[in-house]
Amino acid sequence: MKTVLAIVDGLGGRPTDYNGKTCLEAAKTPNIDELAKRGSTGLLDPIKPGVKPESDTAHLSIFGYDLDKWYTGRGVFEALGIGMKVKRGDVCFRTNFATVDENLNVQDRRAGRIQEGQKGLEGALQDLKSSQPDVKVIFKASVEHRGALILRGPGLSGQITDIDPHETGVKVGKAEPLADEESAKETAKIVNEIVQQSHEILSGLSLNIDRRKEGKLPANILLFRGASEKIGIPSVRERYGVNGVVIAAGALYIGVGRALGLEFKQAEGVTGRADSPIIDKAKLAVKELRDDDTGFAFIHMKGADSCGHDQDAEAKIAYIEKADEVVGYLLDNLDWNQTRIAFTGDHTTPIAVGDHTSDPVPIVFAGQDITPDEVGEFNEKTVRKGSVGRISGQVVPILLGCSDKI
Amino acid sequence: MKTVLAIVDGLGGRPTDYNGKTCLEAAKTPNIDELAKRGSTGLLDPIKPGVKPESDTAHLSIFGYDLDKWYTGRGVFEALGIGMKVKRGDVCFRTNFATVDENLNVQDRRAGRIQEGQKGLEGALQDLKSSQPDVKVIFKASVEHRGALILRGPGLSGQITDIDPHETGVKVGKAEPLADEESAKETAKIVNEIVQQSHEILSGLSLNIDRRKEGKLPANILLFRGASEKIGIPSVRERYGVNGVVIAAGALYIGVGRALGLEFKQAEGVTGRADSPIIDKAKLAVKELRDDDTGFAFIHMKGADSCGHDQDAEAKIAYIEKADEVVGYLLDNLDWNQTRIAFTGDHTTPIAVGDHTSDPVPIVFAGQDITPDEVGEFNEKTVRKGSVGRISGQVVPILLGCSDKI
Repeated sequence: MKTVLAIVDGLGGRPTDYNGKTCLEAAKTPNIDELAKRGSTGLLDPIKPGVKPESDTAHLSIFGYDLDKWYTGRGVFEALGIGMKVKRGDVCFRTNFATVDENLNVQDRRAGRIQEGQKGLEGALQDLKSSQPDVKVIFKASVEHRGALILRGPGLSGQITDIDPHETGVKVGKAEPLADEESAKETAKIVNEIVQQSHEILSGLSLNIDRRKEGKLPANILLFRGASEKIGIPSVRERYGVNGVVIAAGALYIGVGRALGLEFKQAEGVTGRADSPIIDKAKLAVKELRDDDTGFAFIHMKGADSCGHDQDAEAKIAYIEKADEVVGYLLDNLDWNQTRIAFTGDHTTPIAVGDHTSDPVPIVFAGQDITPDEVGEFNEKTVRKGSVGRISGQVVPILLGCSDKI
Repeated sequence: MKTVLAIVDGLGGRPTDYNGKTCLEAAKTPNIDELAKRGSTGLLDPIKPGVKPESDTAHLSIFGYDLDKWYTGRGVFEALGIGMKVKRGDVCFRTNFATVDENLNVQDRRAGRIQEGQKGLEGALQDLKSSQPDVKVIFKASVEHRGALILRGPGLSGQITDIDPHETGVKVGKAEPLADEESAKETAKIVNEIVQQSHEILSGLSLNIDRRKEGKLPANILLFRGASEKIGIPSVRERYGVNGVVIAAGALYIGVGRALGLEFKQAEGVTGRADSPIIDKAKLAVKELRDDDTGFAFIHMKGADSCGHDQDAEAKIAYIEKADEVVGYLLDNLDWNQTRIAFTGDHTTPIAVGDHTSDPVPIVFAGQDITPDEVGEFNEKTVRKGSVGRISGQVVPILLGCSDKI
C-alpha cells in the first residue's frame, strides 16, 4: 500500500472569513470534494481540543508522536530543515538577523527582511566562540533573516528561555535557565555570551555600514529562540514500517520530516509562498511513489497559512483552489486500489484573527479499504456529519492502520 | 444497578470480509440489533485512533486504565489467568514449550502443539533454580504448549527483552536489559540461565525421548516472553465501587479480569475456541447477577478473533451469530430497568488481513438510563451515526458512569 499525507498549512477558517463563508467553503474545490465523496470525513484537533497548535507541534502530533515525550522545541527542526547535520545531544536554535540600537533595543526583528549578503554574515559569524572550550558553535544562515545555530558539546541543555523578545522597542533579553540544573545555567550563559559576540562582530561589518548608508536596517545582532535538544525520536520507518519522503518548501516542515527520518525531495521552483507552483509537489509525489510499493509521501503546502496571517481572504481562497489542483493531479495519477490519502490542515488560521487558533480542521481519509460516508463536500461544516468523528492528532497512524507494524 | 460488559474478541471487520460486507454486517443478529434499537451506539477506538491493540492492552484500556501507568507487559495476566498466585514485585512471563535443535535453533515454537504430558514436564521443571539464591523460580504448565513462570525475590525488573524469537529457523535469543539498571541486568542474566537449564532438564526426559521415537517434536526448551512486573493496579471494586466477575475461557482474559480484582467464574464446557458453547456464559452471568444488586459481569467471547486470524469469514459470521444468541439470552433474562450493558469488540480482525488492525469497532450501550439514538442496526457503518460518537477506551467507566464512585 502507498500512502499520502497532504497538509494545507492553516487550512481551517471561520464563517467571518469571506461573506459569511470560510475560505474553504468559498473556494471552488471539485477535486477535494471528490475525495470527500470517496472517503470518510471528520474533524481533526491537531493536538487536542482547545490547544492552539504551532506548526511543529501540530505536525508531530499528526504524525502520532506524543508531544510530552518527543517535543523539545523548534530549533532542531529549523536546523535540520536548512540542511545542518544535527547530532544527539546538540542544542539547536532558530536565529534571526535583527537590528538593535546602541542600547540593544530591538528596532526590527528581521533586519528589514534582509534580502542579500547572508553568506557574508554567515562567514563573519564563524568566529563565534564559547568561553567553555569543549562547546562548539555552528551557525548557518538560510533565506532572508533566517538561520539556525547549534551548540555541540558535553553538559548542555535546551531548558533555557528565548533571548528573542518577540517584539520591537524592547531590549534584547537574557537567556535564563528553565531548570535548576548546571547544564541549563551553563547553556544560558554561553548563549548570552554568543549574542553579545554576534553584535560585536556584525556591527563592524562593511555590509552593515553600507546598509546604514543606503538607509537600510543593519543586520547587527543574532536573536535566538526555540532552544531544543536533539533526542532519539524513532523514525516513521521504525514506528510504522514505511519508507517516506517529505515534499515541502518551508525549512520547519522539511526539518520535521527529516527529524522523523523522511527523505527530503526538492520540487522544482517551489518557494513556500502563496505564489509557489505547488502542482509540482503533486508531480514529484507521484513520481516518488511510483517505484515504491510501501511508499509514504508527506506533501506540505504552506501558502494558505501565510494568507491567513496576512488576513487576505481572496489570496487564501485562491491558494486553496491551487491545492485543489494538487489533489486533482493525485486523483488522476495514483492507483486508488492500492493507495490511501489523508488530506487536512495542521491548524486553523481565520482571516479575522490573522493567527493560529485552536478550532479543529476538516479531514478526509480516502482510498484503499476506506468506507465512504455520506459527506460529499469538504469544509468545516459538512464534515461534522462524517464518519471519522472528531479525532486528536494520530493522522499518520490511522492512515497506515492496515500495515502490520503498528 | 447491575452491569454487563460483553466483548466479542476481534468483532470488527472490513467491507472486504465477505461479498462487500463486514462479517458483522453479513451475520444475522436480531438480538444485537435490538440492543442497538434500545441503546446508544458509536465507534470505539479500544486504545486510541491509529493504535493497533493487543488483547491485553485493549482490555485494560476498555476498563479505563491508563496504559502508560498500569501496563507492564503480558506475563502477569498469563500467570494470573492460569491460576498462579502473583505477589507485588514478582516478574512474570508467558512461556511456551518449544522444540530446538542441538544448536538452539527454534524448530517449532509450540513443540508440535503438544497435547499431553504437560504435568510431567511441569514436574521436571520444579528443579529450575536461579544462581541468585534469593530469587525463587515458579513454573506452571497450562494447556498445550502454554505456561507461565514467575521470578520472585528482591531486585528484579520486567524491563528485559523476550528470548522467544517469535519465529522458527532462528536461534533462541538472549534476554537483554531494556533499562540501564542493575535489576534489569540481573533479571536478564537469571532468565538466560533458566532457559539453558530448561533445555538441559527437558532434553533428557523420557517423555521427549518417546516423542522423538513416535516422530513427534520434543518439548525440549522453555521460551519466555512478555516479561512484566506485578504492580499495584487498583481493582474495579476500588475504582468503580462494584463487585465483579469475569466469565471467559482464555487465560489472558481471565488474567486481566483477576488483575483488576474480578472473580473468575467457570462456565461449564466452554473452550475459548470457535465451537465453544458460549450461551453457557450468558446463563452463568445471569445467575451471578441475580443475587447481587451492584454486580458487574465481564463476558469475554474469543472465537471471532480466532476465525479472523484464520481468515475464515464464514466461521466468523457463524460465531457472531452465536454471540447474538448470548445477547438474546441476556435480553430475555435480565431486568433492563436496573441493568446496563456495553456490547463491543476489543479490536478489529479483518479477514483480508488475518491480524489485528487499528480500525475502530462498533459499540452499543443499552439499558437503564441510556437514551436510545436513531440507529437500529448494529454494524461498522450504521453506528457511525450513533449518539456515542467516537470514543477511546473508557468503556467500563462510561458504563458505570452513574455511580458516584468515578
